[in-house]
Amino acid sequence: MTVSEKTLANAIRALSMDAVQAANSGHPGMPMGMADVATVLFSDYLKFDPTNPKWADRDRFVLSAGHGSMLIYSLLHLTGYARPTIEDIRHFRQLGSPCAGHPENFELAGVEATTGPLGSGLATAVGMAIAERHLNATFGDDLVDHRTWVIAGDGCLMEGINHEAIGLAGHLNLGRLIVLWDDNKITIDGAVDLSSNEDVRARYAATGWHVVSCDGHDPADVRRALDEAVADPRPSLVACSTKIGYGSPNKAGTSGVHGSALGEAEVAAAREFLGWSAEPFIIPEDIAAAWREIGAKGALVRAEWESRLASHGQKAEFERRMAGELPAGFSLDTYIDGLIAAPQKVATRKASELALGAINDLLPETVGGSADLTGSNNTKTRSTGPLTRDDYAGRYVYYGIREFGMACAMNGMALHGGVIPYGGTFLVFSDYMRAGIRLAALQQQRVIHVLTHDSIGLGEDGPTHQPIEQVMSLRMIPNLDVYRPADVVETAECWELALKDATGPSVLALTRQNLPQLRTEKADENLCARGAYRLRAAKAERKVVLIATGSEVEIAVATAEALEAQGIGADVVSMPSWAHFEAQPQSYRDDILPQGILRASIEAGTTFGWERHASLRFGIDSYGASAPAEVLYDHFGLTAAKIAPQIAAALA
Amino acid sequence: MTVSEKTLANAIRALSMDAVQAANSGHPGMPMGMADVATVLFSDYLKFDPTNPKWADRDRFVLSAGHGSMLIYSLLHLTGYARPTIEDIRHFRQLGSPCAGHPENFELAGVEATTGPLGSGLATAVGMAIAERHLNATFGDDLVDHRTWVIAGDGCLMEGINHEAIGLAGHLNLGRLIVLWDDNKITIDGAVDLSSNEDVRARYAATGWHVVSCDGHDPADVRRALDEAVADPRPSLVACSTKIGYGSPNKAGTSGVHGSALGEAEVAAAREFLGWSAEPFIIPEDIAAAWREIGAKGALVRAEWESRLASHGQKAEFERRMAGELPAGFSLDTYIDGLIAAPQKVATRKASELALGAINDLLPETVGGSADLTGSNNTKTRSTGPLTRDDYAGRYVYYGIREFGMACAMNGMALHGGVIPYGGTFLVFSDYMRAGIRLAALQQQRVIHVLTHDSIGLGEDGPTHQPIEQVMSLRMIPNLDVYRPADVVETAECWELALKDATGPSVLALTRQNLPQLRTEKADENLCARGAYRLRAAKAERKVVLIATGSEVEIAVATAEALEAQGIGADVVSMPSWAHFEAQPQSYRDDILPQGILRASIEAGTTFGWERHASLRFGIDSYGASAPAEVLYDHFGLTAAKIAPQIAAALA
Repeated sequence: MTVSEKTLANAIRALSMDAVQAANSGHPGMPMGMADVATVLFSDYLKFDPTNPKWADRDRFVLSAGHGSMLIYSLLHLTGYARPTIEDIRHFRQLGSPCAGHPENFELAGVEATTGPLGSGLATAVGMAIAERHLNATFGDDLVDHRTWVIAGDGCLMEGINHEAIGLAGHLNLGRLIVLWDDNKITIDGAVDLSSNEDVRARYAATGWHVVSCDGHDPADVRRALDEAVADPRPSLVACSTKIGYGSPNKAGTSGVHGSALGEAEVAAAREFLGWSAEPFIIPEDIAAAWREIGAKGALVRAEWESRLASHGQKAEFERRMAGELPAGFSLDTYIDGLIAAPQKVATRKASELALGAINDLLPETVGGSADLTGSNNTKTRSTGPLTRDDYAGRYVYYGIREFGMACAMNGMALHGGVIPYGGTFLVFSDYMRAGIRLAALQQQRVIHVLTHDSIGLGEDGPTHQPIEQVMSLRMIPNLDVYRPADVVETAECWELALKDATGPSVLALTRQNLPQLRTEKADENLCARGAYRLRAAKAERKVVLIATGSEVEIAVATAEALEAQGIGADVVSMPSWAHFEAQPQSYRDDILPQGILRASIEAGTTFGWERHASLRFGIDSYGASAPAEVLYDHFGLTAAKIAPQIAAALA
Repeated sequence: MTVSEKTLANAIRALSMDAVQAANSGHPGMPMGMADVATVLFSDYLKFDPTNPKWADRDRFVLSAGHGSMLIYSLLHLTGYARPTIEDIRHFRQLGSPCAGHPENFELAGVEATTGPLGSGLATAVGMAIAERHLNATFGDDLVDHRTWVIAGDGCLMEGINHEAIGLAGHLNLGRLIVLWDDNKITIDGAVDLSSNEDVRARYAATGWHVVSCDGHDPADVRRALDEAVADPRPSLVACSTKIGYGSPNKAGTSGVHGSALGEAEVAAAREFLGWSAEPFIIPEDIAAAWREIGAKGALVRAEWESRLASHGQKAEFERRMAGELPAGFSLDTYIDGLIAAPQKVATRKASELALGAINDLLPETVGGSADLTGSNNTKTRSTGPLTRDDYAGRYVYYGIREFGMACAMNGMALHGGVIPYGGTFLVFSDYMRAGIRLAALQQQRVIHVLTHDSIGLGEDGPTHQPIEQVMSLRMIPNLDVYRPADVVETAECWELALKDATGPSVLALTRQNLPQLRTEKADENLCARGAYRLRAAKAERKVVLIATGSEVEIAVATAEALEAQGIGADVVSMPSWAHFEAQPQSYRDDILPQGILRASIEAGTTFGWERHASLRFGIDSYGASAPAEVLYDHFGLTAAKIAPQIAAALA
């Protein structure tokens, strides 16, 4: 190579400072500081092919310190990805450019994960590394044999999620996960020691990681460290000692270079310092050619892999799974027919377990788990043995008491492809992992959250454990499907919908307490796909439509019966999914929720938001209490005996 | 003492297993396993006086493993607190009993924090320990000199929040914080090594903690460890090796004893094993007397403290602060008068900094901070120097990149009393600490969250950083006040309201971008206290009421002007607080939002929920994008030029 590695790295620095300067917005410090490390990584370690960015056996690279987005944009451009073009980079952080403020997986092939919320990228990479080992165990070295690389900053390491993520990775001994820590000793507020005196290396070692350090501005030393990391069977932390904003003669090494443009004068000074004389956004041809050569190296490896795939006995199954397609004809109809034939009263968490029994037999790609509530979330079935450091072929992850870590790991598994992850915890603890759920939705990934104990119906555990606002607040996350099924049949239907939607995550809100099977007749379609449907039509002249979800549908039916006994006709509408209902044609919605008739909602959670569908709202707008479930339902007025008179009074 | 320590501990075991058995619900394993440790702690280390449970200089004890609530209920009862009575314990987990499923600070004096969500109790204790050192530095050893003790389980240590909490405690060298870890090697799913192979001791040591181990069933060994912990200047982790459910001959040491009643037969077997022959809920008088004697020991220490307080020069100020009362006559009127006299266009985050300048001068009890976004959240003022391990008298905490840890630490500071904590991060990262915010609301604590960058108005950082659903989803947390002020005056008013409400937390949602001062005339009252008010009355005949919050009030005013130019009269209502508005009399609400007139809402976030107030809703129901703020406002249709025609059309 005639172009020095320092010069290659300077191309990243130049693009980064130029783009941030042009936008007058962004974070030049990290890309400039980590340019040397990234150059070594992309030159000699990362397995990738810009002409086939989605190649299944590529290495995954996650820029967990997502604010340094110009690092990945520069690398993708320089190594020959179709996008971003130099025009894209010129329009960094402008509307329509795929070079958004933070890297977005849905904008650019080569961006494996949407990052920016600190710590989440590394935690997502853990999930990718799990998926890799699982698929390796399933399909063998010929098809699946790659690494997951992460660049993370001090923020990623200080966040709580880091503890959960590295704990899980250490426990599962994910040796193909290598984290390059940008150890620059600077955070936004100033020196790291303003807020932390932790011995990061010792903490990682305590968690089962291999740790190695290097000078992040000495390519040979970086190579030594990466070689050691690759050789070690444990997950590796490579502490790269760097100077933030390296190249900026007056600002490097300070927090001032973290999140602001350098300014024209300092950009000029940096050009001088780096010996970079090209105009902004111009990469001299010899340097560009050297980078393209680096990008071209992966084509051969990919071609060899393609030929192995072509003759592989599991080619079709592997391709189906990686494409995220369910087996042809997948359906739960047979299972549901069985329910219709033999109705049963079970909690919807149990109904979920029953459905999963069928699903996990039909779909070898599901990988389940729970954040230490396996027996309560009912997430484990006979076909999902434990996924452990000794048996990656297992299909059940004991995530430990790590809700947020679980959510992000599942995001990574879905992003990797080839598996459909689901995981359980109590619904109230969705608050712990809300940022992870949101990232699944933003990244458009099929991740299924099994959230049980979904109301005061959990009983004695009391207000810390009783969701009030959680269901409603999850409904407002864009691109998240929230399902609250009312019985064993709806639970199966909702599971089917969650599995069939490859474009976003789902939440299943499920009860601890038993519920009668309300759906006892065979339906022509998946009624939950409508979002809401008429479960029971008024017998007397219709005066009210009762809308309920989950465990309160039973109460709505009892309320309707009490009203009918007084000659007041009442429809009962079950509404397991607001989002699906709102996607129905207006005519359907008007039929189910007709104008000009009293509508009353019943849901054992906040009434906030129910204004959308109901003028009379029964729910709970305070915290719960500790008592048996039936006592609480009465205490909070959620019984037919207490609701029916209020509806009758409203109609009088 | 004639009653052995083992017998004292068995009283805890008996009450715990009896109460769980009676409720047929609860967690006997932890109280039975930690009974010996807790007996030593309460006998010889914890400074408390059951007859004066709120005594300011008492030690704080936090049961972070809150599911083991019978441990604290037993201890409070046995040592002589007025509540819980034995009847309260008999009604464990029943409606009306203060012995709720998990300990609740608002139910029992002696329960210092509401716990149950794992990890949060320990993180809360860190805040208590910060408050203790801060007040010690302020008022001296004579008035403030106590410890904070925690009992935590494996779940508390595995949660991500643990990393943030111990990182902060280690950094601040909170030597008076001592965590007793119930090292029983069991989680709900089974053995701890099912999900973790971490060397917990090494991790704590890496984070600046002193670590000591002991046999949790050997009182002398526990004493040795506690003595060492007390002597060490660092925060201490005391690893107590225990057997979960100790006393249950057939279930101890298994996950089966974690979260279920033992069953009648096993309770009988445990009585036999422990040599405990008393009937359920009966404590033999000699044992009861021995426990009461332990409880009585603190009276003398308290009396000595009372006499020191009586003659202390800062008595009045100390008592004011500990009572949570603001100085008499506290008001921001003078500051606001200055704004009226000299209007200014600033971001509301800057407006918050200006208000804080006045507040922090007036209120010595405020302790501010930020999760590494000090310059962006504008949370630091001239009177708040850093609170560090070398200067606890400082009033500004560099929390590091630890949002959830910050939220819980602030909860602990508020629970301790004597300080009013506020802290900043970006609004979108409220998702990281949502469980902590909820716990502040549930615990009724005055904690103020300064959440800046509150919409797409933050611009280029893009969708990972742009709140969409956050403001609305925070509004639905019971007992949380969410304020979204529209200008520099409203920001001051909202700060005043947040400070004056000692019964719950507040969120201030603040902009990155500059906003004009809309309030330019002196008001007779704090208009934000009304929740919503008419900022601008229609000039032409009123046809529409525009309701907006925060940065969109400016847009509403421009929209109104555009409509008035067409002869369409438009009120503009600013609605900084939904909760305050809903607390107004119906007549006021009807005046501000009259029936029978088109109401349109404008808020740069989800329209979900605005059905409550408006039939026409302008907002953003998708994720944001990366671009300059003004470009995004146009892109998402939130400009007067785009809104006014739609309103005119709706009226046509």
